[in-house]
Amino acid sequence: MPYGKVDELAINTIRTLAVDATFKANSGHPGAPMGMAPVAHVLFNKFMTFNPKNPNWLNRDRFVLSNGHGCMLQYALLHLFGYALTIDDLKNFRQVDSITPGHPEAHDTPGIEVTTGPLGQGFSNAVGLAVGQAHTAAVFNKPGFDLVNNYTYCFFGDGCAMEGIASEAASTAGHLQLGNLICIYDDNHISIDGDTKIAFTEDVMKRFEAYGWHTLWVKDGDNDLEAIEAAIAKAKEVKDKPSMIKLTTTIGFGSKLQGTGGVHGNPLKSDDIKQVKAKFGFDPEKTFVVPQEVYDMYHEHASQGAAAEQEWNQLFEKYGKEYKDLHADLTRRLTRDLPEGWQNKLPTYKPTDPAVASRKLSESVLEAIHDVIPELVSGSADLTGSNNTRWKKAVDFQPPSLGLGDYSGRYMRYGVREHAMAAIMNGMSAYGTIIPAGGTFLNFVSYAAGAVRLSSLSHQRVIYIATHDSIGLGEDGPTHQPVETLAHFRALPNMMVWRPADGNETSAAYYMALTSKQTPSILALTRQNLPHLECSTIERAIKGGYVAHEDQEAGLTLVSTGSEVGLCLEAVKVLKEQHGIKTRVVSMPCVEVFDAQSKEYRLSVIPDGIPAMSVEVMSTLGWEKYSHEQFGLNRFGASGPYKEVYKKFEFTPEGIAKRGVATVEFYKDVKPLRSPINRAFTQLI
Amino acid sequence: MPYGKVDELAINTIRTLAVDATFKANSGHPGAPMGMAPVAHVLFNKFMTFNPKNPNWLNRDRFVLSNGHGCMLQYALLHLFGYALTIDDLKNFRQVDSITPGHPEAHDTPGIEVTTGPLGQGFSNAVGLAVGQAHTAAVFNKPGFDLVNNYTYCFFGDGCAMEGIASEAASTAGHLQLGNLICIYDDNHISIDGDTKIAFTEDVMKRFEAYGWHTLWVKDGDNDLEAIEAAIAKAKEVKDKPSMIKLTTTIGFGSKLQGTGGVHGNPLKSDDIKQVKAKFGFDPEKTFVVPQEVYDMYHEHASQGAAAEQEWNQLFEKYGKEYKDLHADLTRRLTRDLPEGWQNKLPTYKPTDPAVASRKLSESVLEAIHDVIPELVSGSADLTGSNNTRWKKAVDFQPPSLGLGDYSGRYMRYGVREHAMAAIMNGMSAYGTIIPAGGTFLNFVSYAAGAVRLSSLSHQRVIYIATHDSIGLGEDGPTHQPVETLAHFRALPNMMVWRPADGNETSAAYYMALTSKQTPSILALTRQNLPHLECSTIERAIKGGYVAHEDQEAGLTLVSTGSEVGLCLEAVKVLKEQHGIKTRVVSMPCVEVFDAQSKEYRLSVIPDGIPAMSVEVMSTLGWEKYSHEQFGLNRFGASGPYKEVYKKFEFTPEGIAKRGVATVEFYKDVKPLRSPINRAFTQLI
Repeated sequence: MPYGKVDELAINTIRTLAVDATFKANSGHPGAPMGMAPVAHVLFNKFMTFNPKNPNWLNRDRFVLSNGHGCMLQYALLHLFGYALTIDDLKNFRQVDSITPGHPEAHDTPGIEVTTGPLGQGFSNAVGLAVGQAHTAAVFNKPGFDLVNNYTYCFFGDGCAMEGIASEAASTAGHLQLGNLICIYDDNHISIDGDTKIAFTEDVMKRFEAYGWHTLWVKDGDNDLEAIEAAIAKAKEVKDKPSMIKLTTTIGFGSKLQGTGGVHGNPLKSDDIKQVKAKFGFDPEKTFVVPQEVYDMYHEHASQGAAAEQEWNQLFEKYGKEYKDLHADLTRRLTRDLPEGWQNKLPTYKPTDPAVASRKLSESVLEAIHDVIPELVSGSADLTGSNNTRWKKAVDFQPPSLGLGDYSGRYMRYGVREHAMAAIMNGMSAYGTIIPAGGTFLNFVSYAAGAVRLSSLSHQRVIYIATHDSIGLGEDGPTHQPVETLAHFRALPNMMVWRPADGNETSAAYYMALTSKQTPSILALTRQNLPHLECSTIERAIKGGYVAHEDQEAGLTLVSTGSEVGLCLEAVKVLKEQHGIKTRVVSMPCVEVFDAQSKEYRLSVIPDGIPAMSVEVMSTLGWEKYSHEQFGLNRFGASGPYKEVYKKFEFTPEGIAKRGVATVEFYKDVKPLRSPINRAFTQLI
Repeated sequence: MPYGKVDELAINTIRTLAVDATFKANSGHPGAPMGMAPVAHVLFNKFMTFNPKNPNWLNRDRFVLSNGHGCMLQYALLHLFGYALTIDDLKNFRQVDSITPGHPEAHDTPGIEVTTGPLGQGFSNAVGLAVGQAHTAAVFNKPGFDLVNNYTYCFFGDGCAMEGIASEAASTAGHLQLGNLICIYDDNHISIDGDTKIAFTEDVMKRFEAYGWHTLWVKDGDNDLEAIEAAIAKAKEVKDKPSMIKLTTTIGFGSKLQGTGGVHGNPLKSDDIKQVKAKFGFDPEKTFVVPQEVYDMYHEHASQGAAAEQEWNQLFEKYGKEYKDLHADLTRRLTRDLPEGWQNKLPTYKPTDPAVASRKLSESVLEAIHDVIPELVSGSADLTGSNNTRWKKAVDFQPPSLGLGDYSGRYMRYGVREHAMAAIMNGMSAYGTIIPAGGTFLNFVSYAAGAVRLSSLSHQRVIYIATHDSIGLGEDGPTHQPVETLAHFRALPNMMVWRPADGNETSAAYYMALTSKQTPSILALTRQNLPHLECSTIERAIKGGYVAHEDQEAGLTLVSTGSEVGLCLEAVKVLKEQHGIKTRVVSMPCVEVFDAQSKEYRLSVIPDGIPAMSVEVMSTLGWEKYSHEQFGLNRFGASGPYKEVYKKFEFTPEGIAKRGVATVEFYKDVKPLRSPINRAFTQLI
């Protein structure tokens, strides 16, 4: 059917809604929605299958607005198609507690797949969503049951194209031959600083071709709906490559300032709005107008989506009769619950077991549980042998044509691309059928900070396996030794930072990481061997902090994590024998989980009346919350055999004892000596 | 002169030194040095001009080993050419307190230009070094005085090629047409996970062509010295494009495991070492052998470099007679001192001056000082109008052919490439004649965390102008509102994090940032307007923390930063009038600088006997060090007009007062109530 009046009307409705909402909010980005309304209309109304009444239907097509500042485009579409997003929500654009915040947030708004805005993230999430589809299809589809065949569509702009994370993700997607991924590049030549020619003169299409993408160019993205449709249709035909459609558009199409930076990040002026509306045949005096025929057309499309879901439900029911186990598995995965009894597979250890590095303990967990948690997909940013992220029988997730694995494989080779790895994992998690875990050195989780932050903000159950967690990595030296990293991620809301001290604590960290459906985790793991503690159990460790060594007559509490807990236990002897001080030791593998325990419990772990000293071989920042005094490393580390490096910085039983004595001495006269757990008021959460 | 025996001997000397050092250290990466020894030999001995006796000579050619794990290559070269790096230093490879750490560190080792190892950084630093050369040449070169004409050479491997930061930097270098930059890509097909085909199948040369680079391919990098020489010579001829030479090599050339991942990150086995040495004509039983003719050849080249420097010194002296001011300027820049009296240009403010956003105050500083500090080069990652980083008369640093500026321009258009911006600034700073300052939103400094860390570790005077520093940015919402960011960078050693409260504090922040020759700074600046404080002066603020409101009878100290200091001053009234509590207010724009003051001073600011409460609208992590109780935001923010957002989280005079009252109440019974400045022991620095 050729495009006509009602299509034009729909496009201009999207444009004027974006104009009105940004004007009312006195804030926001009208330019991208005005420029991309035509392609959005064609894509959503001609290609995408979705049911606004059930935004969680598994086989829906996914849409990602990587240039998330243009979110009024997306909010307008969600409203027009009938998602639970009212015209009042549009009027509340960018207001406190609205579901239409300044950038799209997956957790809060129905129909938003992933949280975007920080540039490059959405594009990389889209790669993850496409990985999710390819993997889920490979695992569950059967002859006659094409259960999972959705596409992932992504809009991105010049900003995303410039970001390194998107380069990493694009190279990955090309390697993986993700034919289910179609990305539309809004080539509008404008970024915040003005014409992109001041900083961005590369040949973007050629670059994507170099990555192995199929590329297309629509030269008149403002008007040529047929060409847009033809390009998307052609992209869908190419099954062994992701497609990038370069769409040349005019930012702020219709505005007097169209094609300039003036429409990028500021609402249109009142008189400009009037001329825009008049030009588009809208009443210049009215705001937030939606012609009924636009609702009708889009609701008709939505009802086709609802019918498609119903059909799919029937297919899935029938599938359940032929493939009972797979049906049950997929049904369970969609609840995000784990299989019953899975936790019985978690390894446990006795104090007499040989000392093992926690990165190896992590490997043992993966080896033990990968069979019972089929949704677990591991991987590494090219540090497989160092991160110990791969179970022995793992198959790589690879395009079958390379002969190195297939799409049902559960091991991702992310390459040396930490930032994209994190964002791809966010997308995989958002797909809904996968729990992604990915490894790199703890120090290089910082490369991924932008995406790790979004794991937290968007409540993705993503597991960062972060090995080589301290100066304990030794010879690689300060460039690779994290000092500030744990403080950084402990300050990040909705992130669990685990630094287990031994085998049982490592199992506990995985238990919590896997069962916390709305929270990502960083597991900070050692390169060096660690002894197993006397008192550790999974049950105790999943409280985040517990007493690893009790003494009813203690004059000092040591609070420690990971590799330093064992040192503290040795320091106990020195303190007693050389200084006559009886000492308790608290192992605190995860402060965030400890914070969630009852005050009574927390006070039993770090009680009143006894001075507490923290011991962790990195920045002391934040440890004041759990201790009166802090022993740490507020400087960069050193290159050398790890025992030598520990010695250099006095992280020895004697070095700990020396500071413990000073702590006891210092607090002798303070009455009452309150536990740091006691606070004057509760923090807002 | 054709290549002969002695060249081969030199190459194999480099290889065996790398083999011996990694074996002795029982740690390290022999593969890259063995594979890249031929190109290193040709490059250093045929092309590079440098004087090992003065590694700081301005016009030396720069060399960057971006694949820094291969640093035994570089250490061997430095030793062989006669830098202050002895054979014993090679034997001390990767030992505590050696000058040959596991990855090259600029600050500690003569002849190392930049700190590398974290992949992609060195490549991006090389772009910065090339920018430094182009800019310095444009400013200082005159007819007959080609003072500055050095090249920057960089080796990089597959790991660097995969990292997003290198993609960003490569795109930037192509745009900037940096013909003085020649990068050699070690195409050895091996990364840690094995064959690069498992994750990296893109066409790297085509990608670099898309960026606007000149590309060349040497197919036999193991043996064809003539081809290597010809390629580098050809690259030097191309003046308007950076060059990338793809050099196909065999990793671990000579080892029984050559061409495999087995030689990447582990020392060779003893028997393999013996066969390598035998194959190369070395005594299998001897270690760390350097044939005299190798020393002779390299020392001869070094003496040519010394002569070149001497000649240059004469030229520079002559230049001084014709261009007295420029000569004086360049001479001064090389000392890293600022021009005398520059600080008199810093703006100062009275309390009656109108409220201004600190991002605008920062702009006023730049406007006021750019004339007197000609080495200051500003820029932004595509947020110029938001970061307010550009003075009115600024000229862009651009290739002249684009007609948008020239290489003498002092304003960098980094594009939306935060990570590369930071690493390029590290390179610009390392060049020695520039103080780079670059802007982005504070939240997106996190995208650059990998490079920011290296600013600190390698002691670069780089200034991050980080605007939109909190929920105070308002409508853009949680995706853009930093919460964890200041805690992150406060935990980073050798970093000054400034969050000024008003005009005088903003000037103080710049004063410290510009005069701290060995320390980078992050200036966290507001989007919203701030009133000027009664008590602020530059002199007080450069102590990092000072009393902004004193009361001899105070029962409470509020410790605050930036936009919340003004709120605290309002809270003083509420506390007095409604609760009868007299309150002191401390403004603490930079905790790191405050920490460096005398204990006496610090105790005068946060005294014993009075409970202190910190007030900062982000993670409270770390504030326990300066206060007994903390009021902050340990969750993500919200999208809305900023005053509404502040209200939602109770960051109002009343919200502060309420918690202040609770704090006073809570500490009533504690005797003695010590200032948190008092500690039981001193941290190791």
